[in-house]
Amino acid sequence: MTDAASAVAGALARRFGETVNVPPSTAGLDELLRIATHVTHRRWADRPVPDDLVRLLAACALSAPSKSDLQQADIVQVRDPARLDAIAALVPQMPWVRGAPAFLVFCGDGRRFRRIFARRGQPFVNEHLDAFFNPAVDAALVLMNFIRAAEAAGLACCPISVLRDRATELSAILELPEHVFPVAGLCAGYPAAALSVNPRLSLKASFHIDRFDDEDTDALLDEFDERWALARAQRGGPASAPPPAPVPAVGPRWSDEKAKQYSVAQRADWGAFVRAKGFGLD
Amino acid sequence: MTDAASAVAGALARRFGETVNVPPSTAGLDELLRIATHVTHRRWADRPVPDDLVRLLAACALSAPSKSDLQQADIVQVRDPARLDAIAALVPQMPWVRGAPAFLVFCGDGRRFRRIFARRGQPFVNEHLDAFFNPAVDAALVLMNFIRAAEAAGLACCPISVLRDRATELSAILELPEHVFPVAGLCAGYPAAALSVNPRLSLKASFHIDRFDDEDTDALLDEFDERWALARAQRGGPASAPPPAPVPAVGPRWSDEKAKQYSVAQRADWGAFVRAKGFGLD
Repeated sequence: MTDAASAVAGALARRFGETVNVPPSTAGLDELLRIATHVTHRRWADRPVPDDLVRLLAACALSAPSKSDLQQADIVQVRDPARLDAIAALVPQMPWVRGAPAFLVFCGDGRRFRRIFARRGQPFVNEHLDAFFNPAVDAALVLMNFIRAAEAAGLACCPISVLRDRATELSAILELPEHVFPVAGLCAGYPAAALSVNPRLSLKASFHIDRFDDEDTDALLDEFDERWALARAQRGGPASAPPPAPVPAVGPRWSDEKAKQYSVAQRADWGAFVRAKGFGLD
Repeated sequence: MTDAASAVAGALARRFGETVNVPPSTAGLDELLRIATHVTHRRWADRPVPDDLVRLLAACALSAPSKSDLQQADIVQVRDPARLDAIAALVPQMPWVRGAPAFLVFCGDGRRFRRIFARRGQPFVNEHLDAFFNPAVDAALVLMNFIRAAEAAGLACCPISVLRDRATELSAILELPEHVFPVAGLCAGYPAAALSVNPRLSLKASFHIDRFDDEDTDALLDEFDERWALARAQRGGPASAPPPAPVPAVGPRWSDEKAKQYSVAQRADWGAFVRAKGFGLD
């Protein structure tokens, strides 16, 4: 294997806990390596991100595919310090929002679509779940495409989906009108340090051939819980670190953390917010 | 500007109908050019896509960020000719599905999340819209990341979201269980020919600073309708083609096509399908 192929294979082995073959003569390995080593950053180098670079990345991101070419995604870049302060105050547990060199909010936009009909005096006959689902998916595609463009340009990112916990307040700060809703915020900046990849569930759980098969879910959850705890125990160590110390006998696993995090209702008012924005969800 | 910077600027000017500055010393221009020149392909070169390449791209794609690290996206690669035939028969208007060298379906998966609670005998207290929204967004992130990885490796793609028109049948073919739903299919293969980029709404419509501003929507829709019709008139021409012929005096614009396409209800049963999969959408 070439060095680049080895690097991709190594990153994916750390990520998934299993071997992922890199076929000979695979093209684009530098880019695949960036994708395979994606990691969320929350600390930034003391280097500004110029506004025209953000605009360039936004244009690249908005080149994403769009359901029925309806183009139902928008990006709001927040530059105004007062608005940034107000947004950061919504998520005080995330101080990296206020410190981010660039901050954006990715929105689903069902407003232009409806405008097409209103301008024609034509009834809008698609007020059901699909007309909310499509802009949500469009916005997610643009968000992911932005992250890829940003990482190509040497930036690192941190999605802030927890802003939806305060969707009504965020919407007021950004003056989001009817039929426009936030999907996630995003911090972007030059990273302060290199970070190693986070573990993911085995591909046996998430990549299926021909039919969905989750007969082994419990075993795969157990295997991932162990691997996740191991990775946490060695967190911060270099990618080439020797095998980590044994898993602590007591210590939370991934399943434990998620069960705890979601033991109380989260964003139970999200549906009410979306309906108040004018979407029918039947 | 370097050649690469000029190429990015040129692609984005064709896409958005306006100048997008490429700051000097922008890194990653080769990758930004691939993002900026993304285009959906439906015709494939006679060259197979090896299964281990698909698995590599899937692993890269599943390295995408995930809401709360809940990892609620799955990929199903369809290899079985009988299942491929059955899926292609659901969308006979899209013969490129059956001919695609690789075909995958990207799914939102709320099943593992619930399993974590069931294994603990802990009540699931998040049965509301957010618990459907998160896997939908996760799946869209993985879909976009897959497209980026595939294009890096020299492939081209075609998302098939219209498969949700036949969600119940697709779900049966792929044996999707409760709390697992399709977001989109995807054809992938080596492209048969180069294609030029499709136009998009002006960044004045989709990229906002500090606040959502759509006061100019009508003018921007009119401008885009003209530009879209021009691009259609010269479709297939090389990127360096001379200015196209004047817009036909009569001929559909983008708004016309979308108003016509959605003049009848589309996927009005999507909500019923999602609820039948066990999701509460309140």
